[in-house]
Amino acid sequence: MTPSIPKGTRDFGPEQMARRNYIFDTIKSVFRKFGYAQIETPAQENLSTLLGKYGEEGDKLLFRILNSGDAFAGVDMSQDSRQLSSCICEKGLRYDLTVPFARFVVQHQNDLVFPFKRFQIQPVWRADRPQKGRYREFYQCDADSIGSKSLLGELEMVQMVDEVFDRLGVRVCLKVNNRKVLAGIAQACGHPDKMMDITVAIDKIDKIGIEKVEAELMERGLDSKAIEIIRPALTLSGDTRGKLATMRAMLASSETGSCGLDEIEQLFDLIEAAGVKCAVELDFSLARGLNYYTGAIFEVKAMDYQIGSICGGGRYDNLTGIFGLKDMSGVGISFGADRIYDVLTGLDLFPESLAVSTDLLFANMGSAEARWVVGIAAALRRKGISCEVYPDSVKLKKQFDYASRKGIPFLSICGESEMQGDTVNIKNLSSGEQLSFAADDLDGIISVICKNQSK
Amino acid sequence: MTPSIPKGTRDFGPEQMARRNYIFDTIKSVFRKFGYAQIETPAQENLSTLLGKYGEEGDKLLFRILNSGDAFAGVDMSQDSRQLSSCICEKGLRYDLTVPFARFVVQHQNDLVFPFKRFQIQPVWRADRPQKGRYREFYQCDADSIGSKSLLGELEMVQMVDEVFDRLGVRVCLKVNNRKVLAGIAQACGHPDKMMDITVAIDKIDKIGIEKVEAELMERGLDSKAIEIIRPALTLSGDTRGKLATMRAMLASSETGSCGLDEIEQLFDLIEAAGVKCAVELDFSLARGLNYYTGAIFEVKAMDYQIGSICGGGRYDNLTGIFGLKDMSGVGISFGADRIYDVLTGLDLFPESLAVSTDLLFANMGSAEARWVVGIAAALRRKGISCEVYPDSVKLKKQFDYASRKGIPFLSICGESEMQGDTVNIKNLSSGEQLSFAADDLDGIISVICKNQSK
Repeated sequence: MTPSIPKGTRDFGPEQMARRNYIFDTIKSVFRKFGYAQIETPAQENLSTLLGKYGEEGDKLLFRILNSGDAFAGVDMSQDSRQLSSCICEKGLRYDLTVPFARFVVQHQNDLVFPFKRFQIQPVWRADRPQKGRYREFYQCDADSIGSKSLLGELEMVQMVDEVFDRLGVRVCLKVNNRKVLAGIAQACGHPDKMMDITVAIDKIDKIGIEKVEAELMERGLDSKAIEIIRPALTLSGDTRGKLATMRAMLASSETGSCGLDEIEQLFDLIEAAGVKCAVELDFSLARGLNYYTGAIFEVKAMDYQIGSICGGGRYDNLTGIFGLKDMSGVGISFGADRIYDVLTGLDLFPESLAVSTDLLFANMGSAEARWVVGIAAALRRKGISCEVYPDSVKLKKQFDYASRKGIPFLSICGESEMQGDTVNIKNLSSGEQLSFAADDLDGIISVICKNQSK
Repeated sequence: MTPSIPKGTRDFGPEQMARRNYIFDTIKSVFRKFGYAQIETPAQENLSTLLGKYGEEGDKLLFRILNSGDAFAGVDMSQDSRQLSSCICEKGLRYDLTVPFARFVVQHQNDLVFPFKRFQIQPVWRADRPQKGRYREFYQCDADSIGSKSLLGELEMVQMVDEVFDRLGVRVCLKVNNRKVLAGIAQACGHPDKMMDITVAIDKIDKIGIEKVEAELMERGLDSKAIEIIRPALTLSGDTRGKLATMRAMLASSETGSCGLDEIEQLFDLIEAAGVKCAVELDFSLARGLNYYTGAIFEVKAMDYQIGSICGGGRYDNLTGIFGLKDMSGVGISFGADRIYDVLTGLDLFPESLAVSTDLLFANMGSAEARWVVGIAAALRRKGISCEVYPDSVKLKKQFDYASRKGIPFLSICGESEMQGDTVNIKNLSSGEQLSFAADDLDGIISVICKNQSK
């Protein structure tokens, strides 16, 4: 009989929200510092906007919304399920923030300043099979810059990654590659048409290891000679300069490949000029599954915690083409809030004071006393102190409990004698220290509370 | 061919988002100051949670989500549309934040600290006919305190209204009434069973006027003698004390009515003790349509702008009863963000600086120069300054335009000579004033930017 929520969805209580807001607020403030402005798009998009953008598998994972009114009126009920569902559902819930962003840019192109730098933090919905760490509703947290081909865009993504994780206290390694290099490798091994097959196979290297990747490449039609050529790309070690030199020789004949290597080299030079602090590693085996990337690709891993990538992105040359706006190159990044949450929890990196919302609780010692402290509480709030008056005149034990469970650091117990004497006492609930002030000495009360906060 | 969004939904661009965030941030910080903690619930709820909670009309306005997988598998297609839709849809989008809140409290009752004070700011969806000011997706912005019958709960709602609108600079009048008084009126006029009919009719007084309200009361089965008794309640003027005295005499025989008047009197006394600044008016014709209110009810109107109520709320005694948890009295309030947005726009009350996200733009004078300023920009960001490097080395006119359209106040144009001389110039784009600094004199640059901000 207890009510429940749909599987794969979550409620977030006060503590979780404080932690989630800490992550989102950190990311937002970094996005803003680089000139990215927030936008929001509706949860529902027309299915014509969403269908065909995420592959056949993605189309199946879209949540569809039944047309309002009588959805079946005039519908031929003898159609198959597939046709039927497209008759009775014209809208779906957004599956990611990238397609709505492309739709937004095309729809509002005349009102936007290009390069258009936007960030967007909203939930997305996928009818995936729920499992540990995979939800049917989750937040995405994206920044994109669209309307310029400059590598300064890639640099900004790297800098934002660096600053976000520095502020959160997470040591990370940012891996970089370039899709043009992957195209070059496909050319070099004699299968320029198989670039996507190679990418999809290589993308799994972290999960399944090199041997299984090679097996998959065979399955996808590459012969052992081609695989001989690809192998060094997957296993190359050493410093960036050395990796680049080896790959330059391998891809000398491929113009695209060489161009990708130039871009990587220039990006590493800019990263040095900007003084990026986190580790940045060139990894030719980095592929990223998404089809729309055409240039640089990134992925971020936490160094001290075992989990998949916590952030990723890349350059795309034709995101808005599907909606009719050509030649809009862009670069974007997406932070994985749920995984970052797990990393901060696992490494115990959330600040302790996050959950505390109230500085001071006034106990309720009866209606006359409550009426009196209500005025003092109001005066303290006007000076920026967050406080509550316990609503009911119940046993002190219960009121203490309330303060302690909510993590409220100070309690004031003003009974008849305090009211008569016009004094307010303030008890520090962790140290037990108790001080008394004249009721109009607000600054005295505030100084005690603020001294505790700055600890 | 231009892509579009479903009717009744909206995109929010950077300027609108900045304004909306200003409203939400103001409300959030006030909620927190009174000890309310944020929660979030999923967009999708089971239809069993939502159905029957909003009346028959509300059920029709729920957006239903097609079951994932093959929704029609095994479904008897000969059923009528209504039965069919309940077979193929098990979930719906939330219609408000109140029912999900009640569901949350019941589901997590063992983990919550009571009185549980939560706020929630999330979108809701209604398949209403879209019209001016009415959307199919809009944010609600609610605070509720549940688990205490104390009138200090009502007082907090009044205080939060007072502080929110004071901070936003909107002069408001908060109207107060009590459902028990309405029940008392129903008893006094001999129709205790018609309290809801009377409430529904009275609720329309602002829209349709007293004569049409009386006509509706007749239609709903009240005779002219009963209406004679109700009329003074709708037209009573004078000060609070006088209104209370008149109504006390009228409702002397009704225990419920007298209790409602006691509560009103005590609430006004607490409002005085707390030093609430906004106008608070006792209005016996205030009814509010929602069925679940059982005690105090509130409504807020802007004094200098013609629009419906911009905030409302009240006391409910049995919100969680529908989910099996009895005796949980609570009080809540909801701010109407869209209307508040219209009021602030209409009265020109949004702060001017809201949209500016970037303090300083470095022009791009070529790749060597860009590489050089990237380092300076990074150093400034580390000190908290928000800056951008224009990505492409295009005509200065275009770069100026970018700064001006984004409202960026400062532009730095560092060419070869600045790079050679290790100096940075900063131009104030509104005053035209230009200053030059040694490239490592970050504090000099920052002081110019901050001086401008504090204006």
